[in-house]
Amino acid sequence: MKYWWVNQNQTYDHEVNGGYLWSPKVNANGARNQFYDNMMLASVGDVVFSFCDTYIKAIGVVKEKAVPSTKPTEFGDVGSNWSDEGWFLTVDYTILEAPIKPAFYMSELAPVLPNKYSPLQENGRGNQGVYLAFVPDEMASILVKLLDGQVETILDNSVIVEDDFSNYEEAKEIIFARADIEETEKKQLSNARRGQGLFRSRVSMVEKGCRVTGVTEKAHLRASHIKPWADSTDEEKLDGNNGLLLSPHIDHLFDRGYISFSDEGDLMVSHKLNSEILKTWSIESESNFGSFNQQQRKYLAYHRQNKFLS
Amino acid sequence: MKYWWVNQNQTYDHEVNGGYLWSPKVNANGARNQFYDNMMLASVGDVVFSFCDTYIKAIGVVKEKAVPSTKPTEFGDVGSNWSDEGWFLTVDYTILEAPIKPAFYMSELAPVLPNKYSPLQENGRGNQGVYLAFVPDEMASILVKLLDGQVETILDNSVIVEDDFSNYEEAKEIIFARADIEETEKKQLSNARRGQGLFRSRVSMVEKGCRVTGVTEKAHLRASHIKPWADSTDEEKLDGNNGLLLSPHIDHLFDRGYISFSDEGDLMVSHKLNSEILKTWSIESESNFGSFNQQQRKYLAYHRQNKFLS
Repeated sequence: MKYWWVNQNQTYDHEVNGGYLWSPKVNANGARNQFYDNMMLASVGDVVFSFCDTYIKAIGVVKEKAVPSTKPTEFGDVGSNWSDEGWFLTVDYTILEAPIKPAFYMSELAPVLPNKYSPLQENGRGNQGVYLAFVPDEMASILVKLLDGQVETILDNSVIVEDDFSNYEEAKEIIFARADIEETEKKQLSNARRGQGLFRSRVSMVEKGCRVTGVTEKAHLRASHIKPWADSTDEEKLDGNNGLLLSPHIDHLFDRGYISFSDEGDLMVSHKLNSEILKTWSIESESNFGSFNQQQRKYLAYHRQNKFLS
Repeated sequence: MKYWWVNQNQTYDHEVNGGYLWSPKVNANGARNQFYDNMMLASVGDVVFSFCDTYIKAIGVVKEKAVPSTKPTEFGDVGSNWSDEGWFLTVDYTILEAPIKPAFYMSELAPVLPNKYSPLQENGRGNQGVYLAFVPDEMASILVKLLDGQVETILDNSVIVEDDFSNYEEAKEIIFARADIEETEKKQLSNARRGQGLFRSRVSMVEKGCRVTGVTEKAHLRASHIKPWADSTDEEKLDGNNGLLLSPHIDHLFDRGYISFSDEGDLMVSHKLNSEILKTWSIESESNFGSFNQQQRKYLAYHRQNKFLS
């Protein structure tokens, strides 16, 4: 996770209400601009300190990578000298209940400002011409500390269950652009991303229902990859042993690494999961859900190693 | 739901294994062709009788509307006279355990064949030049009857939980193409489709957690529209009273109309839901989950009327 700082004065209202950041791709004279290039470097989950009128007023969490987009029409005259071609970054903002004014804390902040591309001057005023600036870890920790728990709370609460398939269209495009495989396989691979088609049929030959809740009616089950689709080879993407049939809430927990299974089928519960969740959903955390076959164990080892939140 | 018939001889293997139908957009001479136009008329959920070697060998369920696509390379020499520009329709096939040969049942079928664009001749052989043909209801019921329960079983079992957001990218494109609203609102409306952003914040001001299971940690909750996003006006799409915070499995049941709520908060369970599901998920079907406010009731009335499976 990276930290960013955005000097947002003129566009603060539009961007914060709209849930985005927008910058031109290059300067009006066509030259590269590091603060615009940074738009492409921001990753999903990164944190953005939103600076406006000398205060950090909001915290953003990046929700989608930047996509090309024309200048928001709502900017109107603001930025009329910006070129129309730019980057649109989806950001989920929380307006702070207790904004802070960095100028008040320059004794702490001045020593950790980056030498190059600093968003702040040593006097605590924003640097002209800076838009999205990288915040080094040391500076970020001081800001997080000054914000006194607000950033942590936002990160804890910012995520409501996202669909598992938010990047499906993108994954599909990449698959369909491949020249090394044929349409049948393209379709099979992209269907597998959503637990559909050939992958689903194959999983259904291995698993009879949701191991945790016992539901067997397919209308209520997801065919979920054990080793994530994105990490799997073509063969693994379509391997019935690389899947489980899970109820939607169990799929959610498994997919996000809150739970996993031992080879023998014992439920493993991450300490990152509030144990109340299992209680409210009536899931027996001490249960055994049946041993896995040899091929499934290979994939489960990957899940425990790479997905399970330890 | 509509019924279709496809004469698939040469491409049966590729299409059934690949989970699709493909046709050119127009005839080689550039003329319109009803059987190709039908590709665009097929809707998600439609049923396709797949006819090959004089048998109905498989049943398909349409999974995604047709998209433009070049001819599958795997067709090879087959259809070398077809133009390269065509339609690709995603179809989930089940190969029948008991295929039927329509020629054996022509006394029943002949009277209900459509006058125009019939896929079958009165002698039970496929009509030359027919690809995807519309099957009138009367003909469809006879075929369903002859298939002796197989179609019903396929329809009951064909659906594994789809993500709620399968059409998100499409919905987003339509929103972003609108000229009557500005970027902020475009982003807000498309975020709302996934229960994110402004809509989520507003729902969280009205609802504190999952009414059914009591979970309050947002990381495990979906912000779900009561009146579906697609049916809502712009204002309704972003109205916090038009949302519930639900656990993933409760969201699944509510979103698909297996459950709803009375104005007073009594759980309503559709007779289409196997009651074992609620038991296995430990959901109390006789419970009251708290009264709804006046605005919520307006949306709930819509849900009961239009989504609840009665």
